[in-house]
Amino acid sequence: MDFDLRFYQVAAIIVSFLAFGTAFWLYKWVASQPSSNKRIAEVGKLIRNGANTFLAKEYKTLARFCAVAAIVIFLFLPVPIWNSNITDNLTMAIAYLVGTVFSAIAGKVGISIATIANMKSAEAATKGIKPSFMSGYRGGAVMGMAVVGSSLLGVTLVLLVTNNETALLGFSFGASSLALFAKAGGGIFTKTADISADLVGKVELGIPEDDPRNPAVIADNVGDNVGDVAGMGADLFDSNVASMAAALVMATALDKASNGTMNAAMVFCYAAIGLLASIIGVFTANMKEGGSPTRALNTNTYVTTVIYAGLTALATWAFNFEWRIWLASAIGLAVGVVIGLASDYFTDDTKKPVHMVAKACESGPAFTILSGISYGLMSTLPSMIGIGVSALAAYKVCEPLGEGYPLFGISMAAVGMLSIVGMIISNDAYGPIVDNARGLVEMGNLGEKALEITDSLDSAGNTVKAVTKGFAIGAAGLTVISLLGAFISEVNTAAVETGVVEEGVKYLTGFDIINPSVFFGLLVGAAIPAVFSAMLMLGVDRNAQRMVTEIHRQFNEIAGLKEGKEGVTPEYEKCIEIATTGAIKELIPAGLVAILSTLVVGFIGGVTAIGGFITGNIVSGLLFALFMSNSGGLWDNTKKYIESGHNGGKNSDAHKAGVVGDTVGDPFKDTAGPSINTQITVVSLVASLTATLFLAFSLF
Amino acid sequence: MDFDLRFYQVAAIIVSFLAFGTAFWLYKWVASQPSSNKRIAEVGKLIRNGANTFLAKEYKTLARFCAVAAIVIFLFLPVPIWNSNITDNLTMAIAYLVGTVFSAIAGKVGISIATIANMKSAEAATKGIKPSFMSGYRGGAVMGMAVVGSSLLGVTLVLLVTNNETALLGFSFGASSLALFAKAGGGIFTKTADISADLVGKVELGIPEDDPRNPAVIADNVGDNVGDVAGMGADLFDSNVASMAAALVMATALDKASNGTMNAAMVFCYAAIGLLASIIGVFTANMKEGGSPTRALNTNTYVTTVIYAGLTALATWAFNFEWRIWLASAIGLAVGVVIGLASDYFTDDTKKPVHMVAKACESGPAFTILSGISYGLMSTLPSMIGIGVSALAAYKVCEPLGEGYPLFGISMAAVGMLSIVGMIISNDAYGPIVDNARGLVEMGNLGEKALEITDSLDSAGNTVKAVTKGFAIGAAGLTVISLLGAFISEVNTAAVETGVVEEGVKYLTGFDIINPSVFFGLLVGAAIPAVFSAMLMLGVDRNAQRMVTEIHRQFNEIAGLKEGKEGVTPEYEKCIEIATTGAIKELIPAGLVAILSTLVVGFIGGVTAIGGFITGNIVSGLLFALFMSNSGGLWDNTKKYIESGHNGGKNSDAHKAGVVGDTVGDPFKDTAGPSINTQITVVSLVASLTATLFLAFSLF
Repeated sequence: MDFDLRFYQVAAIIVSFLAFGTAFWLYKWVASQPSSNKRIAEVGKLIRNGANTFLAKEYKTLARFCAVAAIVIFLFLPVPIWNSNITDNLTMAIAYLVGTVFSAIAGKVGISIATIANMKSAEAATKGIKPSFMSGYRGGAVMGMAVVGSSLLGVTLVLLVTNNETALLGFSFGASSLALFAKAGGGIFTKTADISADLVGKVELGIPEDDPRNPAVIADNVGDNVGDVAGMGADLFDSNVASMAAALVMATALDKASNGTMNAAMVFCYAAIGLLASIIGVFTANMKEGGSPTRALNTNTYVTTVIYAGLTALATWAFNFEWRIWLASAIGLAVGVVIGLASDYFTDDTKKPVHMVAKACESGPAFTILSGISYGLMSTLPSMIGIGVSALAAYKVCEPLGEGYPLFGISMAAVGMLSIVGMIISNDAYGPIVDNARGLVEMGNLGEKALEITDSLDSAGNTVKAVTKGFAIGAAGLTVISLLGAFISEVNTAAVETGVVEEGVKYLTGFDIINPSVFFGLLVGAAIPAVFSAMLMLGVDRNAQRMVTEIHRQFNEIAGLKEGKEGVTPEYEKCIEIATTGAIKELIPAGLVAILSTLVVGFIGGVTAIGGFITGNIVSGLLFALFMSNSGGLWDNTKKYIESGHNGGKNSDAHKAGVVGDTVGDPFKDTAGPSINTQITVVSLVASLTATLFLAFSLF
Repeated sequence: MDFDLRFYQVAAIIVSFLAFGTAFWLYKWVASQPSSNKRIAEVGKLIRNGANTFLAKEYKTLARFCAVAAIVIFLFLPVPIWNSNITDNLTMAIAYLVGTVFSAIAGKVGISIATIANMKSAEAATKGIKPSFMSGYRGGAVMGMAVVGSSLLGVTLVLLVTNNETALLGFSFGASSLALFAKAGGGIFTKTADISADLVGKVELGIPEDDPRNPAVIADNVGDNVGDVAGMGADLFDSNVASMAAALVMATALDKASNGTMNAAMVFCYAAIGLLASIIGVFTANMKEGGSPTRALNTNTYVTTVIYAGLTALATWAFNFEWRIWLASAIGLAVGVVIGLASDYFTDDTKKPVHMVAKACESGPAFTILSGISYGLMSTLPSMIGIGVSALAAYKVCEPLGEGYPLFGISMAAVGMLSIVGMIISNDAYGPIVDNARGLVEMGNLGEKALEITDSLDSAGNTVKAVTKGFAIGAAGLTVISLLGAFISEVNTAAVETGVVEEGVKYLTGFDIINPSVFFGLLVGAAIPAVFSAMLMLGVDRNAQRMVTEIHRQFNEIAGLKEGKEGVTPEYEKCIEIATTGAIKELIPAGLVAILSTLVVGFIGGVTAIGGFITGNIVSGLLFALFMSNSGGLWDNTKKYIESGHNGGKNSDAHKAGVVGDTVGDPFKDTAGPSINTQITVVSLVASLTATLFLAFSLF
């Protein structure tokens, strides 16, 4: 069967709305779950208000930044306005703004559902693990469906309206620039609160996690929402948009050359199938009373991958798509699974690394840190090999199709790896919801059994996070590799348009490592993720020190608080305010470093240096993202493993060392690690968009 | 003036012997210093014996490894023996073995003088800071002169005898493969002992550093010698040889093309001048009573750089060398200074990072680790920019000279940066000597004043290490970049010889990042330094846990030891044995990973993948080496800063957190960080040497 491109676009739009419908149905389902506990409603409201306050402040700050960015874009992109027609620049600026708005909405939707689902999941825990799990999971799935639906819808609409792939990059840049700050800001907020609450509560005073006497406890729960729900949603919205945008830019170029529409059609079709597979996956999610929530979550993920592979094969057969490209996409998916399994090995508490680190904890915190860092560094190897092999294999598989196809193959491998992004987000959002539920159970005094249930749900959230993070990081790597291709074609188009070379001549064919500009870019690009993550961690560090001081003050000044006297409550809002102000103060410089360093390198070394810069950035970005995520997950699970009675159990010296490891790991895995993902996407989008400027102005 | 190449080679040999003469004179001077204390002589002998025992065992193990490697080289390199004439392969195998022997001798010489100078410096401390400093410094300079003299002599002789640059690479590979294991083994030994001694002694029992009751105290002092003296000597011998070899390979190729000898002459001349400048620098070393040893050490370094720049300018004028190449070399030196200053900023206890980390120590070990890691990550940026800029500038400066010159320029920038290697080694070897002296003062009960003096000498050693390490890492980076050039020319020669392409056709001109084989290599290559350093750190971790158990056993079983009863001594040898056995067991796998991964990638992706592999390896290797060295130095100095009375001073909670930071930093800065240097050199030499094999056999 042969169809017009419009057919696939309409199909994509229909599936998007199907996802919205699913999200709405799930939302209604979650909202209809019983809730009656007054204390939980009260605390839940505090969390919801805190999260909304932070989000409002953050978006206000970012709105100013985005307005400035939109003006700069209008003036200079795709070409300086004095050399261009105004419509192009206006389209670009609007596409950028639409990207930021879509991304912001994704975060807001996530917060709205998460702050309801946490209460439902908490109350359901008194009835059993199954209803509690379902409330948490379906709450997460609302977010998953909403984010993936809106990214597919956004990409399709932008291309339908503008018919211009550069505008697509603008939309994607809008999404990722907002994601960069949202992830960084949310990440700083959540870890500030988490670390401070643990440090004073658990370590100094020895009171339980989520004890309502702790002034930072609500801020901690707010943090789960703004960092892990809103920030993560913006982040994956961005990754998903970037992978589709990169694939579509290349598909459109190939289609233009062959006067067809087949390649673009394929991208829409595969993306829509990915979303469809996720919808089916969400509904197959189920668990038996007494079953393992980890297995339930992982099963959904793997079921979705199988459905995706099957349906895309069917579509490829039905619509006469290229089988080689299907294979590239399947390779991406398969390698994603391998990366996920590798991350799982290094963080799962039934495997050797956790046991070895737990043993090291017995010798004190220094050994805990050293062994955790070492295993984290080792864990990078299988994933780096996996990403390298999938890029190599996708390239080689598509090479016989002709020029341009190999890179398109790599971008389709990224689309394949991200096909299950709906599941990734659902699982990721499930984590903070049940984490919050655990807090509410504790604060609402719902009893030991409910606490045990939410504990096990929470721990499952941690474990599956490692798997889904592997997918997300791998896909970001592949996307950015294919964005390198987009960058080259942007440069070549611009070189012809600005008269640098004649029509038909290619200004740039690749980036030779032996070229010193490329090498210069490579070295500087590699340092950026290191500096970026250091800035975020120092932000958390500074902010947490401020908050610890505040918690100490409250315990000292509020009479009866430490003893838990009836009716005495801490000033929760003060801690929320410190986390909010600090996070907003710290998020801007780190984000600017990523964007400005790209511009500096471009204006010094020109487009060749930028090629090296993007590459160095990907390579070291992947390395640090994998290292930090896995080390962090490893320490977290090691601490939980010790708490469950191993190596001396709770309150032993090993446990204290484990807490130190976990505290170091927190900003690793929830602030710096996942933000690097967005950082590398932002860098390559900035580079692609400003290619023309570097062509016109550069020192070397 | 125009001279024959022989003139410069003879000059190089003369300067080498001048260096040996200087070393001998300094040795005699140190040996003639008074020594009378019986207790010091006794402990000194224990240290000397321990170091020699370890070295003997290590060299025995490595001899077996090198013998196997030599056989493999004889069979396969430069081309498989069945396609080659036997002489070439025999030359290569012999050059390799000579390289390993030279490197081993460098280590042995260092140990011999260091274990005398430590005693002299300890005794001199009773008289004042000046004589104590001079004994330590001149002891270190013996090592510096011997190592640099023998590397210059070795390179010159190999080229004179074989007249074959590939043999030079074989010699260099011999040096670096031995260095890889010596550095790794010594690094594991020293940190095993250091960490265990501190952990049980300082932290658990609260007894002073170097207290003779501690069973690990002699092992700790032995470790300084085998790790920081012998290991470091082998390491810098290797870097120096590699930088000269890379420059000579390219110079010879350029000379052949132009039927001249000018470029090779220039390399010999500059290297000889570097050594001469170091000799002068050593004799200008002086300090006043009451002066700062840090300033004395840094002054020497800077004086040497100025002498080098001046003398090379003079030579360039006198011998009609190319001024552009002089400029490239001067750029390397200048950037080396910048990198040194940047490292100094991040580790000096008068600067902000140390103060910030000390403040973080007040909030506990987790914050100590987080802030130390963050500043370490940030510290990579100026150095990465510096290396990138110097490569770019050296390339651009030499570009007008014609094809081949730009890469030669980069290699001469590396030669320039390493011109002061004699000073680097002298300063580096000074560190462990005065560290040992401090231990001897403590164990020999030479009084508070002598302890204060050796303390200040020891602390100066730590600070200047940061500066010299910056030089060493930067130079390794530049050398390996230029080795990429050597790799390309090896491949091209081999491609013609094996009939892959016709005479005059270039098989390889560079490595395009967009080529997926290159990208695959890049990703895998970037992961290797991470895995390599993780293996070393886990080795230290495992080994230290064994030793801690042994120390506990001795304190429990030996009656009167803990109380310091007269005549009760611990079983020092047991600890030395554990460190020795463990280090030798752990060093082989890490080294093999580096070598074998190169072969695997080459046989999978061919020469293009290797290009990416080397590049990824350099980029992430530099990043991790800088990060680990600087974080480690930062933590070390933070601990010392707190001990000197800041942020609560000794035995405060901040101090305990500082000790955790220092313990994590120990294997960072003395095991993993500096070994990465050697690892990246080994990888690129293996790659260059096996280029022909990958050309003949590879999967893609």
